[in-house]
Amino acid sequence: MKTYRKEIWIEIPARRGLRNITPEVNACLRESGIREGLCLVNAMNITSSVFINDDERGLHEDYEEWLEWLAPHAPTSKYRHNLTGEDNADAHLKRTVMGREVVVAVTDEKLDFGTWEQIFYFEFDGKRRKHVLVKIIGE
Amino acid sequence: MKTYRKEIWIEIPARRGLRNITPEVNACLRESGIREGLCLVNAMNITSSVFINDDERGLHEDYEEWLEWLAPHAPTSKYRHNLTGEDNADAHLKRTVMGREVVVAVTDEKLDFGTWEQIFYFEFDGKRRKHVLVKIIGE
Amino acid sequence: MKTYRKEIWIEIPARRGLRNITPEVNACLRESGIREGLCLVNAMNITSSVFINDDERGLHEDYEEWLEWLAPHAPTSKYRHNLTGEDNADAHLKRTVMGREVVVAVTDEKLDFGTWEQIFYFEFDGKRRKHVLVKIIGE
Repeated sequence: MKTYRKEIWIEIPARRGLRNITPEVNACLRESGIREGLCLVNAMNITSSVFINDDERGLHEDYEEWLEWLAPHAPTSKYRHNLTGEDNADAHLKRTVMGREVVVAVTDEKLDFGTWEQIFYFEFDGKRRKHVLVKIIGE
Repeated sequence: MKTYRKEIWIEIPARRGLRNITPEVNACLRESGIREGLCLVNAMNITSSVFINDDERGLHEDYEEWLEWLAPHAPTSKYRHNLTGEDNADAHLKRTVMGREVVVAVTDEKLDFGTWEQIFYFEFDGKRRKHVLVKIIGE
Repeated sequence: MKTYRKEIWIEIPARRGLRNITPEVNACLRESGIREGLCLVNAMNITSSVFINDDERGLHEDYEEWLEWLAPHAPTSKYRHNLTGEDNADAHLKRTVMGREVVVAVTDEKLDFGTWEQIFYFEFDGKRRKHVLVKIIGE
């Protein structure tokens, strides 16, 4: 069995924002030399998400608006977590909706994806460096 | 290490609908000959979900009603994604709530499930052929 | 390839409640002797969740309040699932938001976590014994 590990570092310059990290994950897979197995990609921070969906800008704006309805940032005083001095309670909730991780099959040296599947990083409390873990196991 | 891969094709005749795919996944596991490992089951389309819960019709109707409240289909003009000519933005959001994938342990040649766990495919933009990936790794 | 399996039994004395199970999962990992691989942790019951986030009490209260808004327990008659004699339809929905499972990388004999990542069990229909599966594969 082979295993591979890498951290991808990301700094989104705004509070919230989204980035397609499929190219970075593909580079990891090539570097790993693994042909068959499973690839885990997870946010290592708890106020951001890794998820799979379509690379379409309108959809990303819909996600942003929908998440703000589901778990509004303001008023920040409505969240008990913010009594700790943070203002990011909403980021923890938004990340829960979008998910921490994805597991992707590796087949014939490639991410085994449907036509439109792309991996995204979604930041909910940005303006600082965050990291994503790529772990691949297989042979 | 052994690996196994199969696509399950599904066509739901309505816009939305749900199907228990546990029998198909069990058939894959038998075919794989894998006794111990992990089994990934994921939607390869980005407007449908794979999830685990109870095979109870009333609950499935509750899911349907709840998701329509969380991310209504209409008015379709409220979603920017639909400016591309699609009318399925809500399907992308509903699928996000229900999830893209499940990972199930394989123990003694079986899906290692609690009493009521069953795997479902949930379609949010149907009337066409969609596919689900089953990838099993282990020995 | 090595594999390891254990069930963790949990009884939360109230309808809802949350417990940090990272120590138990760490104990499983030590017992497994696995140095590199993947660790799946999933609820075996369909009215509870396993998720990863921060061990901060205020945040946990925010989750509780938010989930009660997203999928209220009462009136129980609003859910078709409760026509079966159950009163836990909301628990199935809440568990869907928080998730069934997490997959964690194992690196150098440790759960490969960011600074604040902790694994939690979230009960939505308690006062009875429930179980969580830990399955680790690797070498």
